[in-house]
This record gives sequence, structure tokens and C-alpha cells, in this order.
Amino acid sequence: MQKKGILFVLSGPSGTGKGTVCKALLEKERELYLSVSATTRECRIGEIPGETYHYVTFDRFESMIANGEMLEYAKYNGNYYGTPGESVRKLLNEGKDVMLEIEPQGALQVKKIFPEAVLIFLVPPSMRVLKERLVNRGRETAEEIAQRLETTRWELTQADKYTTQIVNDNLEVCVHEVMAYLNKKRAEQEMIAALINEKLD
Amino acid sequence: MQKKGILFVLSGPSGTGKGTVCKALLEKERELYLSVSATTRECRIGEIPGETYHYVTFDRFESMIANGEMLEYAKYNGNYYGTPGESVRKLLNEGKDVMLEIEPQGALQVKKIFPEAVLIFLVPPSMRVLKERLVNRGRETAEEIAQRLETTRWELTQADKYTTQIVNDNLEVCVHEVMAYLNKKRAEQEMIAALINEKLD
Repeated sequence: MQKKGILFVLSGPSGTGKGTVCKALLEKERELYLSVSATTRECRIGEIPGETYHYVTFDRFESMIANGEMLEYAKYNGNYYGTPGESVRKLLNEGKDVMLEIEPQGALQVKKIFPEAVLIFLVPPSMRVLKERLVNRGRETAEEIAQRLETTRWELTQADKYTTQIVNDNLEVCVHEVMAYLNKKRAEQEMIAALINEKLD
Repeated sequence: MQKKGILFVLSGPSGTGKGTVCKALLEKERELYLSVSATTRECRIGEIPGETYHYVTFDRFESMIANGEMLEYAKYNGNYYGTPGESVRKLLNEGKDVMLEIEPQGALQVKKIFPEAVLIFLVPPSMRVLKERLVNRGRETAEEIAQRLETTRWELTQADKYTTQIVNDNLEVCVHEVMAYLNKKRAEQEMIAALINEKLD
């Protein structure tokens, strides 16, 4: 049996540091492939097409949705963002472990299509710290932040649908915990494959 | 928010020791409730109605299936066996952690109804040991055992849909690992509840 890759999904409420954790993880992990999302928004200076995002037109994106080519997608500020399934399936079939870094609602959509996906929920150390991070990030008004924290409370009620939960208090510690968990899942896969392939007389 | 119980499902191929692990677990864990299955087979000497099984008629069982009252069910040797959802939901709503000990196919049925269920896949140490256990149990013919081992290989391909996998080589070690995992999941639940209820000024 050809080894299939494992699909890891890193998610969690806004401000828990998904992007930072994911970036640090990919710097340490040579054998982990980040799936590149598609978007309809314009390419910004410093971004690399096919690396930061796949940039597509509205028509193209909507036909991908209609054809079931998106593992998950969402609309933010008038633009679509989503994960094309084809590239993910290709990497997995090549035996490569894939990482998706997406919003909580998208993560649960992926789980419906890939019930074997490993969903990691990043947990903020406290709501107070999360609020401080959002305030310090300075992207949103006080009202938007209050709204976001309400969304966070709802997202937290969905955390038990994830495979595991990891707190992001200290970045280095969190990244090591995520890596340890990835390796635990890889070991489980190896163990099961060895059993399936075990010859009996 | 009233704390809800956690639904644990202990499963794994025939001969991995689900029943033995479950029994040992319940002896150690006061705060874990075993859901009693329903069956159409007759009550045997030494069994206690409502404790070993809920004994029901074929008509009753089939109407429970038709009304969606069964979380999972299967037919073995002409009799139905299944998990009535009502008692499980009642225990969970009372904040009690519930344990189901069921076959792999049933476990995945439960996951569809309760996406937050924690599925534990018991793994045999090797196919050779599993075969020995089945032979020593002496319940089946060589042909039946060969058939069962083929089923096991298929069930192993489904193991990645479970929340975690625990090897049952030494019973005591295995029971402690299951207990540690139960407590890890309880700690995650407490942590999330504390965040949801955290007051912000």
C-alpha cells in the first residue's frame, strides 16, 4: 500500500496566532507542505502569485465552488478566499503531509470531506490576552474587536469537534507542541501501516 | 453554561480487548458511565436486564431504528445489537461522561451524529498476537478467524478517522493510557469552558 500523506488543519479564533505558528512550523519542518489558498482579491506588493495565493477571477472562483473544487471557502470584505481541493489531493497522494491554515468554520468543512484530517485548534491563553493582541494589532475598531470576541466565544464552543487543542501562550512552546503532535500522528500512521502489511503464515 | 458530559467511544478490531479494557476502566473510574446496549437476543443466565443489555423485541428494535432512536446498530447471528440514543443524551445533559464500547463500524456511525465524540481506536500489538488471541479464545473455526483477520485489516484502514489510537499490548499499561487520554480531554473541556465564561471589562 502506497503511503498517503496526512492532512493537518491548523485553526483557531482570530488572534490566536495561526499564521505565526504556521510560518514557524514550516521553517522547522521540511516534510510539511502548505496548501496555497485561492483568492479573488488583487495581488499586493511583495506577494508572490502561486505562493502567497493563487489569484483568480470572480467567475473562475464561483465556477470552482459550483464544481465542488473548493474544500472550503469564505467571503471576507467582498472577496473570496478558499482551498482548492486538487492540489491538496495531489500532495496527499504523493505521500506528502499537508498543512492548511484556515478559519474555524472552514476547518469543519474540510473535516466533512476528509474525515481522516487531523484538526488542531489553537487556543488563546485567556480572553484578556486575546483582546490585548487584537487591540495591539490595531487593525480594527473597538466595536469590531468586541464583535470578534463574541465570534471567538462561539468558535470556542466548536473546539470539541477538533482532534486536539493546543494553547498558544509562548510561541516557541506552542510550535514544539504542534510538532510533537504531528509526529505522534505520523507514528500512529506508521504503526497502522505496519499492521496492515504484516504477513501471517 | 451547564457543563455537558463527554462522549467517549472505545472501539477497535475484534480481539483487541475492548471489553476487558472497558471493564477495567469502569472499575477505576467512578465518573464514567457505560451506556447499556439494546438487543433482541434472549437474556442469558447470569445477565441482568437493564445492566447487561436492554432486552427488546424485534418489532420494538426495528421501530427504534425507523424512528432514528439508535445511535448505531448491527445485526449479528440473526439478532440486533445497538445503542439507544436517549439514555446517552440524558447522561451527557446531566454532565456525565459516557463510555460506549462498540464495533468499529458503529463507532463511525456515532461520530456522524456526535461530531464532538472522542473516538479511541484500540490497536493490537501485532497481527500475529491478534491471531493468537482469537485462536486461544477458541470461539471460531480457522476459516472464521482468517475471515476476521481480513476484516481487521480493513478496520485498520479506518483507524485514522478516530481521535486517537492506543495499543493494547499490556492491559494495565493500556488502561492507564486510556485514562490519561480521558483526563486530557476533560482538561481541554475545562480550559475551553473557562475561556467561554471569562468576563472581560
